[in-house]
Amino acid sequence: MAPPAASAAAPPANVSAVLPLELMDRCIGSSVWVIMKSDGREIVGTLRGFDDYVNMVLDDVTEYEGRGDSRKVTKLKQTLLNGANICLMIPGGTGPSE
Amino acid sequence: MAPPAASAAAPPANVSAVLPLELMDRCIGSSVWVIMKSDGREIVGTLRGFDDYVNMVLDDVTEYEGRGDSRKVTKLKQTLLNGANICLMIPGGTGPSE
Amino acid sequence: MAPPAASAAAPPANVSAVLPLELMDRCIGSSVWVIMKSDGREIVGTLRGFDDYVNMVLDDVTEYEGRGDSRKVTKLKQTLLNGANICLMIPGGTGPSE
Amino acid sequence: MAPPAASAAAPPANVSAVLPLELMDRCIGSSVWVIMKSDGREIVGTLRGFDDYVNMVLDDVTEYEGRGDSRKVTKLKQTLLNGANICLMIPGGTGPSE
Amino acid sequence: MAPPAASAAAPPANVSAVLPLELMDRCIGSSVWVIMKSDGREIVGTLRGFDDYVNMVLDDVTEYEGRGDSRKVTKLKQTLLNGANICLMIPGGTGPSE
Amino acid sequence: MAPPAASAAAPPANVSAVLPLELMDRCIGSSVWVIMKSDGREIVGTLRGFDDYVNMVLDDVTEYEGRGDSRKVTKLKQTLLNGANICLMIPGGTGPSE
Repeated sequence: MAPPAASAAAPPANVSAVLPLELMDRCIGSSVWVIMKSDGREIVGTLRGFDDYVNMVLDDVTEYEGRGDSRKVTKLKQTLLNGANICLMIPGGTGPSE
Repeated sequence: MAPPAASAAAPPANVSAVLPLELMDRCIGSSVWVIMKSDGREIVGTLRGFDDYVNMVLDDVTEYEGRGDSRKVTKLKQTLLNGANICLMIPGGTGPSE
Repeated sequence: MAPPAASAAAPPANVSAVLPLELMDRCIGSSVWVIMKSDGREIVGTLRGFDDYVNMVLDDVTEYEGRGDSRKVTKLKQTLLNGANICLMIPGGTGPSE
Repeated sequence: MAPPAASAAAPPANVSAVLPLELMDRCIGSSVWVIMKSDGREIVGTLRGFDDYVNMVLDDVTEYEGRGDSRKVTKLKQTLLNGANICLMIPGGTGPSE
Repeated sequence: MAPPAASAAAPPANVSAVLPLELMDRCIGSSVWVIMKSDGREIVGTLRGFDDYVNMVLDDVTEYEGRGDSRKVTKLKQTLLNGANICLMIPGGTGPSE
Repeated sequence: MAPPAASAAAPPANVSAVLPLELMDRCIGSSVWVIMKSDGREIVGTLRGFDDYVNMVLDDVTEYEGRGDSRKVTKLKQTLLNGANICLMIPGGTGPSE
């Protein structure tokens, strides 16, 4: 079953809470920058869909492996990212600077 | 309980959302390229089935371990991949270039 | 299904129990310091929301990678942290001393 | 709750889908080769049972640790494998060639 | 949904079973020593609360990173530990000897 | 919700299936040898209880860290092992030979 809204997200009066899945919802159709967990792989693409385990479907994907001179960049039409292996997602992110 | 469709995948008007399990559904019977999490193992095969934890059954499997000269390639008739250990899946992927 | 409150948190008379999601609730709108699991990445930001899998939305984020001279500091407007990859969260934390 | 059958495994007409738990079911009483996630440990044994988290009970087990000359082989009467730590399972597999 | 008591913990007559969440319940208000998974971080503190995913809230925390001369010890008022990243918990533990 | 018995464990006529939690049930009150996932830590103790996430309570525990001359052996009265971090459990096991 999908987790309900956070149990008691009654933030202070002046702060409007943003739930994780709400944030993902807002990103559909726009670019996201995702940093994967185990090997530091970074992925930028257009978010097409997601589910409650934070699995994601991305289109027009650029995958960055490694750093500096040994960095390998791969273009992929579409990919499914496993939520369990995602470290963090940056809305509107354009990927690593170098 | 299987996660329902993403809670609120109401994308912008011009963008049709693609849910992770929908994408997998479309791949049944075709080739997928799967990059595993922990040891960078890469696997190409025909997707025969999957479940809601992204566990997958692949046929006619080629498994790539390591890189460059030390790469080991193994052919397997059939294999079950554990969803918890999958980093990403590329529909129609044919595996690493080298 | 979202986990209910801890099954039997009947602490000794003089100790009031604090449930994990209660603690997170109290942190909405304030600064938290999060240490990620796999690569020792540390993140400080304002907690905007969370869900029952301890996924978090942070605003005004500072991300610390690596240590000492090779430390890289990145500023990000907003980020989604995957609960599965969080090691620990320190309420009101201001990040690593160096 | 146990995951139901994959939500929409309606494969192309000529491809019969095989669900992960179906494949495991067929392997009960026969030999399986399991590659563990974190330390590349490989295990061969007779599958006696499993559950929906892909936890497995194996009998007449041979455990392979390490590779080449430093490989350590251990015989065990029975063992429980934690599904979360399984990378992949090969039905009928007889273990690493070396 | 919280996992029920272990399905069939009918131990031998002379052995009274202790369920994991029961053990945690007994530790509320007392000191616990927790060894984290990925980087060997060790944490000692007073257990204030927990949930069914073994997420924990600790007060008066001492955090040990690294070993011997390079060990770093940090004092923290309160911290949330992610259950997914806990290796083991020792009731009444006082932390690493060195 | 606890996973039900494996969905379709109808083994061949001559093979009686053993479900993972059944095997653990039989081990209550006896010695088990547990190999942890991330750092190769090995633990031997008397199984006192477990739950459906394979979290375990062990009594009279011997913990083995590292190998050969640098091996560290620690005795602990009682410990809670996190199921997510267990690689495999050997019923009646007495621990590493060296």
